[in-house]
Amino acid sequence: MRQVAVIGAGMTRFGKHLERSLKDLAREAIEAALGSAGVDKAKLEAATVGNAVAGLITGQECIRGQVVLRACGIGGIPVINTENACASSSTAFHLAWLYVASGMYDLVLALGMEKLFHPDKQRTFQAIGSGVDVERAEEFARQMSGEQSVGAGELRSIFMDYYAYLARQHMARYGTTREQFARIAAKNHTNGSLNPHAQYQTPRTVAEVLASPLIAAPLTRMMCSPIGDGAAAVVVTTAERARQYTTKPVFVRASVLGSSEDHSPDAPDVIAKVAQRAYAMAGLGPHELHVLEVHDATAPAELLAYEALGLCAAGEGGKLIDDGLTTLAGRIPVNPSGGLLAKGHPVGATGVAQIAEIFWQLRGEAGRRQVPHARVGLTENGGGVIRGENAAVAVHIFTV
Amino acid sequence: MRQVAVIGAGMTRFGKHLERSLKDLAREAIEAALGSAGVDKAKLEAATVGNAVAGLITGQECIRGQVVLRACGIGGIPVINTENACASSSTAFHLAWLYVASGMYDLVLALGMEKLFHPDKQRTFQAIGSGVDVERAEEFARQMSGEQSVGAGELRSIFMDYYAYLARQHMARYGTTREQFARIAAKNHTNGSLNPHAQYQTPRTVAEVLASPLIAAPLTRMMCSPIGDGAAAVVVTTAERARQYTTKPVFVRASVLGSSEDHSPDAPDVIAKVAQRAYAMAGLGPHELHVLEVHDATAPAELLAYEALGLCAAGEGGKLIDDGLTTLAGRIPVNPSGGLLAKGHPVGATGVAQIAEIFWQLRGEAGRRQVPHARVGLTENGGGVIRGENAAVAVHIFTV
Repeated sequence: MRQVAVIGAGMTRFGKHLERSLKDLAREAIEAALGSAGVDKAKLEAATVGNAVAGLITGQECIRGQVVLRACGIGGIPVINTENACASSSTAFHLAWLYVASGMYDLVLALGMEKLFHPDKQRTFQAIGSGVDVERAEEFARQMSGEQSVGAGELRSIFMDYYAYLARQHMARYGTTREQFARIAAKNHTNGSLNPHAQYQTPRTVAEVLASPLIAAPLTRMMCSPIGDGAAAVVVTTAERARQYTTKPVFVRASVLGSSEDHSPDAPDVIAKVAQRAYAMAGLGPHELHVLEVHDATAPAELLAYEALGLCAAGEGGKLIDDGLTTLAGRIPVNPSGGLLAKGHPVGATGVAQIAEIFWQLRGEAGRRQVPHARVGLTENGGGVIRGENAAVAVHIFTV
Repeated sequence: MRQVAVIGAGMTRFGKHLERSLKDLAREAIEAALGSAGVDKAKLEAATVGNAVAGLITGQECIRGQVVLRACGIGGIPVINTENACASSSTAFHLAWLYVASGMYDLVLALGMEKLFHPDKQRTFQAIGSGVDVERAEEFARQMSGEQSVGAGELRSIFMDYYAYLARQHMARYGTTREQFARIAAKNHTNGSLNPHAQYQTPRTVAEVLASPLIAAPLTRMMCSPIGDGAAAVVVTTAERARQYTTKPVFVRASVLGSSEDHSPDAPDVIAKVAQRAYAMAGLGPHELHVLEVHDATAPAELLAYEALGLCAAGEGGKLIDDGLTTLAGRIPVNPSGGLLAKGHPVGATGVAQIAEIFWQLRGEAGRRQVPHARVGLTENGGGVIRGENAAVAVHIFTV
């Protein structure tokens, strides 16, 4: 398979864009990505488009990508519409990579886009709830929410109950504390304050995170990613052609997708298994990474990712954040963008936005949130839940 | 890129399956495909899943594939959920082909599935209507429906108005007649009577087709594909590995996807352009084909496909059917399965079902509808409409 490079990236600021359509958000991201790559839209040979819930929010299913691409003057090319819940657009990126790696096409756009805000808030949460088996959603909700999880009583995503359940399990097994989760959230909000694309740009302290309203014990609101709208796009080509466009291509060293399966409680989880395949494909290990964007849909999810990705041993995620190793100034910064917690989480846009951040980090273009000397980066993006684990996980590894 | 082969196929009967879930339909198709391939489900390395409108019919978006695959005991592997309106599962097949052709995986399942029937018929038509730009659906409907198209006043898909509009244009330009459209419909219903998987299995005469209720002039009901539920699946592997499983692999010689774009009225349409690319990829032309499955969402769509695919010159589609060349006994049989008109059209299942039919035809396993000595086959599957043309078109060419 051919080596693939990312040559351009763009995204909207994530946030509440009630007045903006998917077309409008996508156009901004696409134009920024093409502009940064120096690629004319007429040269694109294919496009892959990730979106999770437009069918339920706007009524647009079937041809979501074509509808926004034609509005941007892009037509005639193969368009792959794909969804994988919160991992929709890392799946789109995987397919863009596959098109180029296979030799089928040389210049491909990967787009992620989502509108979650809707005047009827109930509809937003119903749409997000389609990331589980909807026929078994009530059973799942009952399993996840114990006595302890009774929160502020407000509308919330079923995923918050899921992550609260995982957090309580980790606390019981390893003595992990809510302060450690809060430390992750404070780090990400503080990183987000340095990112002009972030939905939340206010630095937060551990005390502020702990004092924010309880959503589902032990999660407070600041430990949970917000509802958001947005779009992100990147352009990929062959390593060879990349030199025509830029002196700073970012190479895709691994692109691996996986899904959950039944296994014994002590076997590696889906994130760990996908990460192992990605490390093998890239020919490097977790201790060679300089920067990561991981799927912190909640603060505990980031802590669990530390362990699943091999940044530390099982049960030592709390120590990793206590020691400050994953802060911007630490040995292995995680979520310099602010992550899902602060940058925001318009679900179908998140995967490509993570990749855009690593692109900027590895090119030294991340401004005030730049990780010094970052040359190797990883993204981990999870989507949906079946029987207690992510239904989809995508791990990508990049180098310059 | 590696040569890819189809080694197994299975499908449900298409029809009204109100009491059966997507999981149940998918299981039947998957088990049949794996059984016919002699492949254990535990050996699958990836799955690609096409579905168009489950988000709007059942509320299941995001992880449609994982939900049904886990219910069949298939997990752990990459799952690509893709939609492209009526071309959703030929897009899924294209991605399964790409996974194998690229060298990424060796044994991949492609699944198409759809439930269109819903107790609230309005909901079915709304879901199908998401195959156009929903923000401009009313404008589109006004453009398509002239005075002439006032039909039986019943609920109908916006696509019937679209195809009626195309039919009227063709009649005005080339003198094509409604009898010619009726002849195509009668042919396909008669073919369907020989296919145990077909939704409609009653042979029809031209007179019967013309006498059925008017839907949108010149289309009568029997010239329109019905609402249906169903699933279809195929298994693909490398040409080399195929020999381990079967003495009769069916090779994928071309897999091309495209989308509409703005162009002058006299330029080739999207179907013609995608077909040209497919013929070039396969290294053969339309006159070397022995059998085709084309996207006869309505009878005029099949006639237009004759011309776009190069079976005859522009304007000569009517003559082709008048001469009987595309009947089962003709020189170049089209839609031996009964096509969308008689086999049925559960939109997300249609693309893989077309491929399953060509698989059976090229292996000589098509029973009473077998095309003698068929060794080269083509599928054409269109999906959605933007600005007057299919938003997605997939063309595949197969040989034994």
